[in-house]
Amino acid sequence: MVNETQHTCSASSSSRSDGGSSSGSESSKDNSRCSTPVLDTDRHERLREKMRRRQDAGDKWFSLEFFPPRTANAAVNLISRFDRMGAGGPLFIDVTWHPAGDPGSDKETSSMIIANTAVNYCGLETILHMTCCNQTKDDITGHLQKAKRLGLKNIMALRGDPAGEEWEEEVDGFNHAVDLVKHIRNEFDDYFDICVAGYPKGHPEAESYEADLRHLKEKVFAGADFIITQLFFRPETFLKFMKDCQAIGITCPIIPGIFPIQGYHSLRQLVKLSKLEVPQEIKDVIEPIKDNDAAIRNYGVELAVSMCRELLDSGMVHGLHFYTLNREVATTEVLKRLGIWKEDPRRPLPWAVSAHPKRRVEDVRPIFWASRPKSYIYRTQEWDDFPNGRWGNSSSPAFGELKDYYLFYLKSKSPREELLKMWGEELTGEESVFEVFTCYITGEPNRNGYKVTCMPWNDDPLATETNLLKDQLEKVNRRGILTINSQPNINGKPSTDPIVGWGPSGGYVFQKAYLEFFTSSEIVTALLKVLKKYELRVNYHIVNVKGQNITNAPDLQPNAVTWGIFPGREIIQPTVVDPVSFLSWKDEAFALWIEQWAKLYEEESPSRMIIQYIHDNYYLVNLVDNDFPLENCLWQVVEDTFELLN
Amino acid sequence: MVNETQHTCSASSSSRSDGGSSSGSESSKDNSRCSTPVLDTDRHERLREKMRRRQDAGDKWFSLEFFPPRTANAAVNLISRFDRMGAGGPLFIDVTWHPAGDPGSDKETSSMIIANTAVNYCGLETILHMTCCNQTKDDITGHLQKAKRLGLKNIMALRGDPAGEEWEEEVDGFNHAVDLVKHIRNEFDDYFDICVAGYPKGHPEAESYEADLRHLKEKVFAGADFIITQLFFRPETFLKFMKDCQAIGITCPIIPGIFPIQGYHSLRQLVKLSKLEVPQEIKDVIEPIKDNDAAIRNYGVELAVSMCRELLDSGMVHGLHFYTLNREVATTEVLKRLGIWKEDPRRPLPWAVSAHPKRRVEDVRPIFWASRPKSYIYRTQEWDDFPNGRWGNSSSPAFGELKDYYLFYLKSKSPREELLKMWGEELTGEESVFEVFTCYITGEPNRNGYKVTCMPWNDDPLATETNLLKDQLEKVNRRGILTINSQPNINGKPSTDPIVGWGPSGGYVFQKAYLEFFTSSEIVTALLKVLKKYELRVNYHIVNVKGQNITNAPDLQPNAVTWGIFPGREIIQPTVVDPVSFLSWKDEAFALWIEQWAKLYEEESPSRMIIQYIHDNYYLVNLVDNDFPLENCLWQVVEDTFELLN
Repeated sequence: MVNETQHTCSASSSSRSDGGSSSGSESSKDNSRCSTPVLDTDRHERLREKMRRRQDAGDKWFSLEFFPPRTANAAVNLISRFDRMGAGGPLFIDVTWHPAGDPGSDKETSSMIIANTAVNYCGLETILHMTCCNQTKDDITGHLQKAKRLGLKNIMALRGDPAGEEWEEEVDGFNHAVDLVKHIRNEFDDYFDICVAGYPKGHPEAESYEADLRHLKEKVFAGADFIITQLFFRPETFLKFMKDCQAIGITCPIIPGIFPIQGYHSLRQLVKLSKLEVPQEIKDVIEPIKDNDAAIRNYGVELAVSMCRELLDSGMVHGLHFYTLNREVATTEVLKRLGIWKEDPRRPLPWAVSAHPKRRVEDVRPIFWASRPKSYIYRTQEWDDFPNGRWGNSSSPAFGELKDYYLFYLKSKSPREELLKMWGEELTGEESVFEVFTCYITGEPNRNGYKVTCMPWNDDPLATETNLLKDQLEKVNRRGILTINSQPNINGKPSTDPIVGWGPSGGYVFQKAYLEFFTSSEIVTALLKVLKKYELRVNYHIVNVKGQNITNAPDLQPNAVTWGIFPGREIIQPTVVDPVSFLSWKDEAFALWIEQWAKLYEEESPSRMIIQYIHDNYYLVNLVDNDFPLENCLWQVVEDTFELLN
Repeated sequence: MVNETQHTCSASSSSRSDGGSSSGSESSKDNSRCSTPVLDTDRHERLREKMRRRQDAGDKWFSLEFFPPRTANAAVNLISRFDRMGAGGPLFIDVTWHPAGDPGSDKETSSMIIANTAVNYCGLETILHMTCCNQTKDDITGHLQKAKRLGLKNIMALRGDPAGEEWEEEVDGFNHAVDLVKHIRNEFDDYFDICVAGYPKGHPEAESYEADLRHLKEKVFAGADFIITQLFFRPETFLKFMKDCQAIGITCPIIPGIFPIQGYHSLRQLVKLSKLEVPQEIKDVIEPIKDNDAAIRNYGVELAVSMCRELLDSGMVHGLHFYTLNREVATTEVLKRLGIWKEDPRRPLPWAVSAHPKRRVEDVRPIFWASRPKSYIYRTQEWDDFPNGRWGNSSSPAFGELKDYYLFYLKSKSPREELLKMWGEELTGEESVFEVFTCYITGEPNRNGYKVTCMPWNDDPLATETNLLKDQLEKVNRRGILTINSQPNINGKPSTDPIVGWGPSGGYVFQKAYLEFFTSSEIVTALLKVLKKYELRVNYHIVNVKGQNITNAPDLQPNAVTWGIFPGREIIQPTVVDPVSFLSWKDEAFALWIEQWAKLYEEESPSRMIIQYIHDNYYLVNLVDNDFPLENCLWQVVEDTFELLN
């Protein structure tokens, strides 16, 4: 990731401007000396630059196409799929435009909101499709403005299918994709990267293949940056198309659209829609096995792999675009067999980055949302700029408010019945709650034989890193120190460490030990006595739902708890314990007891009252051991506390 | 330094404003999230707050008065004295106003410029005296505006001695110090802390002691923040005065002015000026020994110590103000015997901080000026704000230019003859230059028997830290790697380490190894080959006087080479190797060859031509070993280079 090339620049004055035009300078805000140290070049490039850089470096890449889901539940699942398939390293994903599904609206299932989620919450480079026929200029401009506001930077400009049989071109209207391309360039200048569709067999409505090529050239010359093609069945179809494009002067990237056949019916439907003809040799294989889904999928994978290999081997193709039909298995399989599915365990930063352009410089966050990054992104989405280099004093007026925290896909992925099985159909006291926490930590089944795979504060099973602390966590949870967040201390591990590493290679990462938990006021009273012995070494914040807050943080300053030292860079300190935002987190953390747990039970039921009691009376505590080179003392603090109580 | 008090604050919204009013918030710039982590509370308080905090904490303190020197040479010496006496920890120093010496001018010896130097270049809290009689309102306002512009925050408001015998009060003029106090408050509101003079025996011109107390009360009620008294000879004189002040409602701090008798003549002169009478018991001691300076000084020290003890023991006195007469020995002796001279080896940051209010947040600088901090401060004095938290990309337009580097007290402290003895009356080749560098490093006398105690790039002998590298530095200098700056790698030493520590206690400090040197183009050619082997591990910048620049710095980003981790704080990274400012440093570093060395010799002389040759042909190189936890590889790099050459 580090630019190792040796470059020569001339005397002082010109080197100043040299610096100004290098990619590093893009990251520096004009009005501030704090600029991001560009740990991750990817984060600072537009899609067309990424494409060019990959091509120059000889890296092969892939991208994934999805359509918007029909229901909110399906949306929650699709977003999980984005996270899983995003792990394979797609250069981008794209989301189709469903004119019938109110695509530009704020609905959880709209094209706009799904693309927004992919960019902002899943950190994926995303192209939003947009069609233009049967729409007014104002509608389209409105959609584009909204897309820009949400942080979308790429548009696939399409004509779309005319509604009704008797469609006629409108004078000065949007009759073709080229009109949309021109409109985007007119109204938004160079802001968006624009993609257009190519038809390897010619558009079904075009007068001829040649006429269609000329239309494509028009789209490119009107400002499109690259082309994605319609699906095709034979590699030579694409290669011929590409040569024909080049012959008439189309020089931008052309990305083949790959459709792994996944089933008999979906193939038939797609073929019908796209007015393509399935070659006889494929029909010959499929017809006999048309009722055997697994066999067809295997065949589809084989076929796609061999076609992709041929395309890549031609030397003309650098990236492959997959029509996933929102499915995971076949595409992932093809990508893995091609060797271009690249699960990179390295993380640019120790938390999930967002791809919103405003957040390009963001490189520090409070630790509290470690298990709820989407909530943090949501709550800070209206911030005009993001802290980088240093968190600073968040009580400064420049700091955005951490706004309300609700969002549909922050709902638990599991239905009520499952949650009840995990967290208890009936609670008999605070101890039953301790048990749930303990089972979540250990991974052991609870007394009814169910594993606790999520908690209101953690939608996923324990992080690998937390596993390092498992034994101690188990011990303290059993005794009513209900942990919801923790990290071990790290004194200079390589940045490539598979568990705690992040950032470019050649660096060293560090952490201060951190522990965050709910606990009773009796324990807090004892804890505070014990903490006096650890003054200076341990910083603490202790708060209850009413906001009573006890801390020894100097001047309410943030405490850096994760940092990294890299070759040729300034220090990166991506995670802090910030006293001010802790109080916003407190509201969210306490509310989750009620919203996610208590409400599973009937009002006035004993189970519900137990959770309500905890909500009303427990404290939320966080502890930082500042002495990161020594053995973590937080377990001793807890041990001392229990001893004092006995 | 860390605020350990446990404080309770209420719910989120109010804690936000709590934070806003805490001392921490003062440091955060309204328009940026980067705020200084307040490593050093002192840096963020005004003088009256410091006084109050010391008094509340029961700390005794002292302050020192100086008068402006008559010649530029005397100014250079006085500034060295500021540095030495500043090391004892005065709460402030003050500089008297010499109406006859053009006190508000830009002369090197003016009161204004001496006070400016103390604040900006010596980092001392400073009070500038100002007198008002025989001056116009516009003159006075002009002086105050200039003082403010220069970063002075404290004024001692005095009437001054009227010029000529026949002085008469002017209607609406400045007839008394109180008029000046009112004027400052009218025109500058609360910007300045104001000090006024108190006369324990009453002002010689006052109608009576009581009338003089009433005048003093007027000055305080007009806006003065504290009082410094005229000298006196008996502790009871001061204690009575203080009680009388309190009795009439003066509640601000009153600081006794202490005058250690240092000689017969200076005492007589001062007594004449101040119209005071020396008590008989003192005269009785002094008269018999009036020709024995040492005996008088010893007596003066005894007398001062016993008087100060009595004052401090009274419980009414928290600070002592010393009239030094620009001398060092007697005052230092008194302070040491009182136990309030506190040489604190701890440094808030690893470089000399400035006390200019604009620089309060400054906590990162390029490493290049490590031995020339006054030059760096001078070159950046016009910057509107200072980097903190991160250096960032200094090619950003927000960055101030590093302006020209000349300043009178950046001249070498040694006269030409001494420099010639150290650096050679006659050079016979580049090797004679290697020898000078080597002698500076080893501390051994040169071939003519003179020690080399300074170099054009280092006005002082080697830093203790550099001593750690002495053997290796000697070896490479002998062979033409002419080192001017270096630091060892440090992997987490306690912040209280006497050699490399800085910042509050309880922290850990780190460094990357750094080496900066001039060398010939032959060596550079070999070095570049060797460096290929060390890619990623070693960052380098190599530049000649014409600005030809070779580097492997990623995107011209700065490399943090000193950082510290402290309890409850964000990371501090006070020193960086910045590629852009290196080119400004290069101009200064090359110019020093000519300005300080070549010009010692006659034009066209062989010695001068040797230095000129080096200036024209050598390269300035800096190397950073990024792998701070491993053994410093830079010596190996140099070793490999020599091997390649052989």
